[in-house]
Amino acid sequence: MATAPRHRPKLYLAGPEVFLPNAIEAGRIKCALATKAGFEGLYPLDNVLELAGLAKPDQATVISRANEALMRSADGAIANLTPFRGVSMDAGTAFEVGFMQALGRPVFGYSTSALHYRARAEAFRNRGIPPGDYDTPALDIEDFELHENLMIDIVVRAAQGVVVTPRDGATDDPHSLDGFKTCLVHARQHFFGAKA
Amino acid sequence: MATAPRHRPKLYLAGPEVFLPNAIEAGRIKCALATKAGFEGLYPLDNVLELAGLAKPDQATVISRANEALMRSADGAIANLTPFRGVSMDAGTAFEVGFMQALGRPVFGYSTSALHYRARAEAFRNRGIPPGDYDTPALDIEDFELHENLMIDIVVRAAQGVVVTPRDGATDDPHSLDGFKTCLVHARQHFFGAKA
Repeated sequence: MATAPRHRPKLYLAGPEVFLPNAIEAGRIKCALATKAGFEGLYPLDNVLELAGLAKPDQATVISRANEALMRSADGAIANLTPFRGVSMDAGTAFEVGFMQALGRPVFGYSTSALHYRARAEAFRNRGIPPGDYDTPALDIEDFELHENLMIDIVVRAAQGVVVTPRDGATDDPHSLDGFKTCLVHARQHFFGAKA
Repeated sequence: MATAPRHRPKLYLAGPEVFLPNAIEAGRIKCALATKAGFEGLYPLDNVLELAGLAKPDQATVISRANEALMRSADGAIANLTPFRGVSMDAGTAFEVGFMQALGRPVFGYSTSALHYRARAEAFRNRGIPPGDYDTPALDIEDFELHENLMIDIVVRAAQGVVVTPRDGATDDPHSLDGFKTCLVHARQHFFGAKA
């Protein structure tokens, strides 16, 4: 358990919120909650980037480098693992969980789906595998009683032992911030040794 | 351009092949191709792990730690970015691309889908968004003329400037190894300064 640091630990706030029509406002709300909990929230869209006049792949390069620099400056991350356009979470967020893990920074995670990975993958298959997808009926479905691919789920559990999900019939609203708030409680415990 | 190293550079071979019914054989084939190209292939299932008697989440922990150690021992990676159970690539592979990028190791990538991310995300939405998915009709679809989420695509392009995909009506077989072989050519160029 760490002693209270001299300044606010920085948390990189990873998730598909950056694709919301109100992405900036969504980031402000998350950052305000982080501030209230004693942290400085770092949101991918915080960077004011000069993209005008750049070709699309060059714009992407500027954004990618800015986000990586933001991650390197962070003490930890909270990642939204909610299913995104398929069985699994947003691939960019998965990349970011791996990035932070390699740097040895704790990642706190939440999902608004209460279903294990296996149940979601079976539902996907039952809907019919789209052309070009790597899945086939013979392909193994991970069955470790986890919420996400084990490489991700285990990292998050190692940080605090939980992936926060809706419990026992709670509303399955993909845009709920309840899991995020619970992650902040866990992050407080990690960084400050405080329970609330 | 690097001079020829004294020993075979190690390449971590990331992708959803680990879920194939013949996962071990699929890894052997990739490792043999890597060996032929002058590398040592590291395949996630190479680890002989003691899982017997462990609860499922504990098995996952052992696998996760072994794969991370394998990545830390690697000089670079080749990642299969083919769509997996949704619009994007396998989340575990995305995690691994981020992990290697944070360590500063080059990642070479291929996908057997010739479609840009945008086209695949639109097709997903047209099939009907499943319950519990974060996607909504108002959510932005990345449009950077890239094949995968920009955090991943840009990293791969930075390694060698390409994400290998089928060209101009080539067969869209998710299990083709053509892209993998082209990545080996790029990896040779990177590590040995050789063209073939």
